[in-house]
Amino acid sequence: MSERRINPWDEQLKIIKEVSEIMGLEPAFYEVVSRPKAILHVSLPVRMDDGSVRVFEAFRIHHNDARGPCKGGIRYHPHVDLDTEKALAAWMTWKCAVVNLPYGGAKGGVACNPKELSRGELERITRAYAAAIARFVGVDLDIPAPDVGTDAQVMAWFADEYYKITGRIIPGVITAKPVCIGGSLGRAGATGRGVFFTAVEASKKYGLQIKGARVAIQGYGSVGYSAALNFYKAGAKIVAVSDSKGGIYCKDGLNPEKVMEHKRKTKTVSGFPGCEEIGQKGPLTVECDILVPAALENQITEENAGDVKAKLIV
Amino acid sequence: MSERRINPWDEQLKIIKEVSEIMGLEPAFYEVVSRPKAILHVSLPVRMDDGSVRVFEAFRIHHNDARGPCKGGIRYHPHVDLDTEKALAAWMTWKCAVVNLPYGGAKGGVACNPKELSRGELERITRAYAAAIARFVGVDLDIPAPDVGTDAQVMAWFADEYYKITGRIIPGVITAKPVCIGGSLGRAGATGRGVFFTAVEASKKYGLQIKGARVAIQGYGSVGYSAALNFYKAGAKIVAVSDSKGGIYCKDGLNPEKVMEHKRKTKTVSGFPGCEEIGQKGPLTVECDILVPAALENQITEENAGDVKAKLIV
Amino acid sequence: MSERRINPWDEQLKIIKEVSEIMGLEPAFYEVVSRPKAILHVSLPVRMDDGSVRVFEAFRIHHNDARGPCKGGIRYHPHVDLDTEKALAAWMTWKCAVVNLPYGGAKGGVACNPKELSRGELERITRAYAAAIARFVGVDLDIPAPDVGTDAQVMAWFADEYYKITGRIIPGVITAKPVCIGGSLGRAGATGRGVFFTAVEASKKYGLQIKGARVAIQGYGSVGYSAALNFYKAGAKIVAVSDSKGGIYCKDGLNPEKVMEHKRKTKTVSGFPGCEEIGQKGPLTVECDILVPAALENQITEENAGDVKAKLIV
Amino acid sequence: MSERRINPWDEQLKIIKEVSEIMGLEPAFYEVVSRPKAILHVSLPVRMDDGSVRVFEAFRIHHNDARGPCKGGIRYHPHVDLDTEKALAAWMTWKCAVVNLPYGGAKGGVACNPKELSRGELERITRAYAAAIARFVGVDLDIPAPDVGTDAQVMAWFADEYYKITGRIIPGVITAKPVCIGGSLGRAGATGRGVFFTAVEASKKYGLQIKGARVAIQGYGSVGYSAALNFYKAGAKIVAVSDSKGGIYCKDGLNPEKVMEHKRKTKTVSGFPGCEEIGQKGPLTVECDILVPAALENQITEENAGDVKAKLIV
Amino acid sequence: MSERRINPWDEQLKIIKEVSEIMGLEPAFYEVVSRPKAILHVSLPVRMDDGSVRVFEAFRIHHNDARGPCKGGIRYHPHVDLDTEKALAAWMTWKCAVVNLPYGGAKGGVACNPKELSRGELERITRAYAAAIARFVGVDLDIPAPDVGTDAQVMAWFADEYYKITGRIIPGVITAKPVCIGGSLGRAGATGRGVFFTAVEASKKYGLQIKGARVAIQGYGSVGYSAALNFYKAGAKIVAVSDSKGGIYCKDGLNPEKVMEHKRKTKTVSGFPGCEEIGQKGPLTVECDILVPAALENQITEENAGDVKAKLIV
Amino acid sequence: MSERRINPWDEQLKIIKEVSEIMGLEPAFYEVVSRPKAILHVSLPVRMDDGSVRVFEAFRIHHNDARGPCKGGIRYHPHVDLDTEKALAAWMTWKCAVVNLPYGGAKGGVACNPKELSRGELERITRAYAAAIARFVGVDLDIPAPDVGTDAQVMAWFADEYYKITGRIIPGVITAKPVCIGGSLGRAGATGRGVFFTAVEASKKYGLQIKGARVAIQGYGSVGYSAALNFYKAGAKIVAVSDSKGGIYCKDGLNPEKVMEHKRKTKTVSGFPGCEEIGQKGPLTVECDILVPAALENQITEENAGDVKAKLIV
Repeated sequence: MSERRINPWDEQLKIIKEVSEIMGLEPAFYEVVSRPKAILHVSLPVRMDDGSVRVFEAFRIHHNDARGPCKGGIRYHPHVDLDTEKALAAWMTWKCAVVNLPYGGAKGGVACNPKELSRGELERITRAYAAAIARFVGVDLDIPAPDVGTDAQVMAWFADEYYKITGRIIPGVITAKPVCIGGSLGRAGATGRGVFFTAVEASKKYGLQIKGARVAIQGYGSVGYSAALNFYKAGAKIVAVSDSKGGIYCKDGLNPEKVMEHKRKTKTVSGFPGCEEIGQKGPLTVECDILVPAALENQITEENAGDVKAKLIV
Repeated sequence: MSERRINPWDEQLKIIKEVSEIMGLEPAFYEVVSRPKAILHVSLPVRMDDGSVRVFEAFRIHHNDARGPCKGGIRYHPHVDLDTEKALAAWMTWKCAVVNLPYGGAKGGVACNPKELSRGELERITRAYAAAIARFVGVDLDIPAPDVGTDAQVMAWFADEYYKITGRIIPGVITAKPVCIGGSLGRAGATGRGVFFTAVEASKKYGLQIKGARVAIQGYGSVGYSAALNFYKAGAKIVAVSDSKGGIYCKDGLNPEKVMEHKRKTKTVSGFPGCEEIGQKGPLTVECDILVPAALENQITEENAGDVKAKLIV
Repeated sequence: MSERRINPWDEQLKIIKEVSEIMGLEPAFYEVVSRPKAILHVSLPVRMDDGSVRVFEAFRIHHNDARGPCKGGIRYHPHVDLDTEKALAAWMTWKCAVVNLPYGGAKGGVACNPKELSRGELERITRAYAAAIARFVGVDLDIPAPDVGTDAQVMAWFADEYYKITGRIIPGVITAKPVCIGGSLGRAGATGRGVFFTAVEASKKYGLQIKGARVAIQGYGSVGYSAALNFYKAGAKIVAVSDSKGGIYCKDGLNPEKVMEHKRKTKTVSGFPGCEEIGQKGPLTVECDILVPAALENQITEENAGDVKAKLIV
Repeated sequence: MSERRINPWDEQLKIIKEVSEIMGLEPAFYEVVSRPKAILHVSLPVRMDDGSVRVFEAFRIHHNDARGPCKGGIRYHPHVDLDTEKALAAWMTWKCAVVNLPYGGAKGGVACNPKELSRGELERITRAYAAAIARFVGVDLDIPAPDVGTDAQVMAWFADEYYKITGRIIPGVITAKPVCIGGSLGRAGATGRGVFFTAVEASKKYGLQIKGARVAIQGYGSVGYSAALNFYKAGAKIVAVSDSKGGIYCKDGLNPEKVMEHKRKTKTVSGFPGCEEIGQKGPLTVECDILVPAALENQITEENAGDVKAKLIV
Repeated sequence: MSERRINPWDEQLKIIKEVSEIMGLEPAFYEVVSRPKAILHVSLPVRMDDGSVRVFEAFRIHHNDARGPCKGGIRYHPHVDLDTEKALAAWMTWKCAVVNLPYGGAKGGVACNPKELSRGELERITRAYAAAIARFVGVDLDIPAPDVGTDAQVMAWFADEYYKITGRIIPGVITAKPVCIGGSLGRAGATGRGVFFTAVEASKKYGLQIKGARVAIQGYGSVGYSAALNFYKAGAKIVAVSDSKGGIYCKDGLNPEKVMEHKRKTKTVSGFPGCEEIGQKGPLTVECDILVPAALENQITEENAGDVKAKLIV
Repeated sequence: MSERRINPWDEQLKIIKEVSEIMGLEPAFYEVVSRPKAILHVSLPVRMDDGSVRVFEAFRIHHNDARGPCKGGIRYHPHVDLDTEKALAAWMTWKCAVVNLPYGGAKGGVACNPKELSRGELERITRAYAAAIARFVGVDLDIPAPDVGTDAQVMAWFADEYYKITGRIIPGVITAKPVCIGGSLGRAGATGRGVFFTAVEASKKYGLQIKGARVAIQGYGSVGYSAALNFYKAGAKIVAVSDSKGGIYCKDGLNPEKVMEHKRKTKTVSGFPGCEEIGQKGPLTVECDILVPAALENQITEENAGDVKAKLIV
């Protein structure tokens, strides 16, 4: 059977359409939120280490700023998909609104493969990107953050380029910078910690015990690892984790720090001693109580939803 | 036989690729010019006369600014096609460069049908568009102009909104304003006049006489009409003209001003007394010496090229 | 006997002159504060619903900014009187200074009758006003607020226009916006609540009991109604209220919410069942313990001061 | 008989009203031009030479900027009259439009008596004024010039203060600066030269000969003196001149440079040897062919118009 | 024996070099911090009270802003020494970093002798200085403060000039303003209080009792006096103080307020009744427990270090 | 005998002092012009090709801007000497004033050796320099140009970085850019051409014939070569040229283009066939009619002045 591609933007539109009808909002509401307010799409000529010039396409989306300046991540990925990013920008609008933060939704990215770029190339791409969108971001306009493929170092380069262009030291222009230049304490593991807190609250509702619960995590980057650590410290058993190169299962539970050490050396969790290899999508369908999808969007689909065994998906 | 759609952007890329190879330019040149430098894509919520809110999509493209601030028209058309507009922006880059003007290439537009909008709605759309791209234009950055569906009045609204946003009176931000607020004399008929001058120069080369030459013109808007007037005054015979609703042919020549009077009353050149009706595409293939395609792009195609009888196409 | 018009600006000057002499301030002090620092007086051409253009006069006054950015309301009223507004701006300076807020005093207004304008006209006037004074306000310069004839919706239009002109989302530019776009909780009834708290403090000093006290309120807009509610909840008896169309008296006390329901339906408090009609100025001179003048300035004059029976005027 | 005060603003309104009706302009036109677009009214605290602080009132008026940035003089005079200045600003709008300059009309002034101020005080007032209106002027907004009571030195101080505030060297912000810092050659006597050229053109029409014509000039400041010189060099006979302290008449004609030398020494033209004393208003009614009123506005009134004997008033 | 001049900048470099080697920092670190990021050196033409123009040299140094906007004092002193000021700017970088404040280091000064300038001259120098460095300071760039020769009044003039140039009221641009215009409470004696707190902490470590401790203070300006007051209130005995004109010693302790009264009258602490005269450098070497050098840098040198008798130097 | 170092700044001061005394200028004039208005001294951390970070010191001097924005070159040289650069900035002030250009004087430079830097390093240094002084230059403030060690390519990098920082395309910010991005035609050889024109004018005065005149040129960079070409085309005989590595003499005259070809291959004029080697300083003292010193300043000194044999030094 052929795989059907889900368009995240269309999905989002469908949900918002339904919700706005249920709420009886006037049609103008849907008219407005069903399109991003503004998209800036730029080309970045960058000198590569071998002396050649490559041009990278990049963009930044403001979905909606009615409730305040926009907020949203920057993604570096070879196949930047505009509809996915538009959907993520819109979800930022809804997420901020739901928890009543005075922010709107944004998202951005560069079509590049950070795994194949040298540190110098990454820095030059980031600086070119920051310069190209410098007048499209700002503490009163749009405040980026890291996302897939970017980290605190990328945020630091972005901030530094922004300082150069504005001639001002404005740390508030971007979040998740290194702590020593104005980043927030605890920001590094914040998303994963949020996953854990959500699981704790949901567990209360569904009568689950975190202590002793079996947890499967798809994705072992910054989010997945931080979630794993939090669950581990709370007494849960990490039975399965995976990354883009493979996945592992261990009925008796894994020590997240040890797994990370292994991954740092071998570039993957796969091959961790004493585990069953279950592949990149393995954690989604293993026997577990709590499932944490911490890789990319749209992993649980019509095709595999029936195989999920977790009681709770966070 | 089915009509094959030509993608103007791909056409442009192919030509530039060939040219840059013939000229032996370094690959970075094509890398850079084969993508617009920046595209700003915005949504414009506008209050319609009936009280409803409609949201119009609009954009502005900077193809390349290596030789100076960008320059290019603003199009209002129901089916704004991004690839067409990207191509037109790129052609602005090449046109400015070829005649050695210190400008780069740009283009923009709003997806709307100006023929179905009231004057008030057109003004509100224009002001919303000007506000949305105000920081993406400017005398040192990008200087718009009219194009299909826009005119001096639209330029005036755009300028006024720009003045309001900048708090400055900067007529240089847009060209082809009404003369009384800083527009240039002679700008109204400039494009058509250029067509005529080009024909004059080409005629010298090909041994044609403008005086007495039979001229066919497809399109009878600002460009076609101005070209017709110039040919007419130089003694040429305007044998065929057309607009989006029809075309006419008159072996003995037409008086362009009379035809325009007719069009003002009936909204089309079609039905002008004493003429044969030849349809919208008629002028392309009538017997004539000089053919002026002054409607949209891509009218002469593989299919009809063989039927063109003109000695000169301008 | 003819009514003598009191000039609020001259009154204010007289008081400040006396105070500065009593305090032995150097003459330069009075020289400076006896004139507003700056007045911006503008004309606003606005398209009316009937297609005509009307021009509204408007202004914004900065009285003094020695202690910080200016702060003060925006009034929409047919007979905007510059001397009244100058005085109100000056009182803002003194009020901020007395409670040691780091703000100076401002005031502004548009000469228009909001009661005769459609919602669309009000929006267009507000946006024209915001654009005209955009460079005269700002978080570091002057922060407007509502006053007679303006409300949270007007603040929202003002903010939105300011965002458009600055290209930034700066909610701090104006206060009392709707809560959902960054307004403060509790701001709606704040002025009336302040009246009540002042009465509570004064009551302590003069040996009055709020509980059971008879309260008369002139004006039943945002301030008067909020004051009434607060007194009512504290056990006071609201014996009289009035608005621009009439006044009512009820010895046994009124339920403020019921009176407001009546006013919403009939556009006036007058005619509320079971009351004696006492006219717009009635509350000023009825039998009561506490009198709250919550309409316009200068209601208690030499002529009627002798008839006031309240023990406390707040 | 009591003197009737003419209100220049009302006069101007009456004329524009009539003209717009004759021309059949739509009512919105008069609605807009019958009010200045913006007036900025400021207070300037200035340290005087004796150590005291005085506060001067000052303003700047933009009458209309539809045709381009505003242009108009700065007046220093003890009795600055807002209606006079509004009228002068409006006349700048009409004068620029009539000769098709791309400028609108402005005017400004400080209520002070430059004759009683030291050079240091004048400089400090000028710098305070420049700072207070710095964001209300600019090459793209409003370009001041000298008027009664101000000269090239005042323009230089204004420019220098503007440079300090903007951090830029922008000589175009003000005209009639000293030539050495960017003023135009020939600007000093330009207004008087214009008077003369106008007389030359009018003379042709009315069959007058400039050579030998008898010229009377009221006012002997920059304008009157320059006019006198031009007429004198063209062979006209300067039979009468006056200034604020008196006037002189000499049937055989005066040498303008000698008269100016006398005025420089004695502060008035009065007392020039060999002349009849005719008082400040004398030139208006002496026997002459050409009369040049070069003092303040409204010198020829209903009362004295019948006594004017000149064939031409310029 | 000739006095050897210590270069504070070289001293600082030597220390930082050693520290960075001990810490094993990469060489680029020392490369960068061993030079100020930027120095702005300006000339200030100022009109003196006698009408002459004098030109004062002034500067502002940004040592490093990696951790946030720069912070540092403004010094008015006849012999401004660039190397000293560079060192002080660098020490600001280190001090902010050590206590983890998000600021970098700056310093500035004007080469003038404030003791020989009138109040008007001081104001004009300060305003000229503020204007000259206005684009080199700011809440997001560099925030000055007082230092030797400057006080709250100088800060107020600086702030006011900055407000004039920016057209904004931005109290955050400079610290230690008078409280009434936005200065912080307790700022006046903060440095001296800090000296005292440091002594308290050090005393705990070294087993000293503040109560009864003998304190000698070199320098009796804002810092020395505040320190004296704090020690006095804590029960310490102020046995010696000095200023630039002399020093006094009193075995039984001095009342700091009485000494200050004496200094206000006579311009020096010297001559205070009942004391032994010990000269300006006397406090450095008297018998005492705690020594507070609160004058200029580099008072304790190789030559006199052996004579210091204090147990604690703060 | 030891060589005495001439301080160009002191030299310049001495001359200006004398001139201002001869002209009887008020002392304030010399006070002001004897100090640069502003010097910005910055450090530029730059990543070198070997991965290390080096920090280059750089500066920009504004000597005086009374007559307009400053103008002056940018020098890249290992031993940037502040006093030399200050003098060159001052000379720019005087040169612009003498020929009545509305510009003041500036100069700048980076302490680096462009001959030892790769193209990439030069670009990164230039971009860092442009960013560091971006707010100190501008069309209304200071317009740089090339000088020793910099060329059109450096200007292009500078302009591009300035565009990035301002977000505007402002070719006027720097002169001598490559023609294709807005540089002026004829700018490349302008300085040498000016030398030639000056010689032509001086020759008329001193009765010299350019045709046949023997010309010696010290320095064979952009200036010397362009001068040589101009003299050669006018029929003069180029008898001697030199560069930093040596000098050549040819009694019968040299063909400048051939010499340049030789230099391009061998990096020096020295060794050109058929010439006598005379060393770098040779041209100063050879037998010739016209001597052109086109290397650095201060080549003709007390020591060698007696040996100069030219009739004319340009």
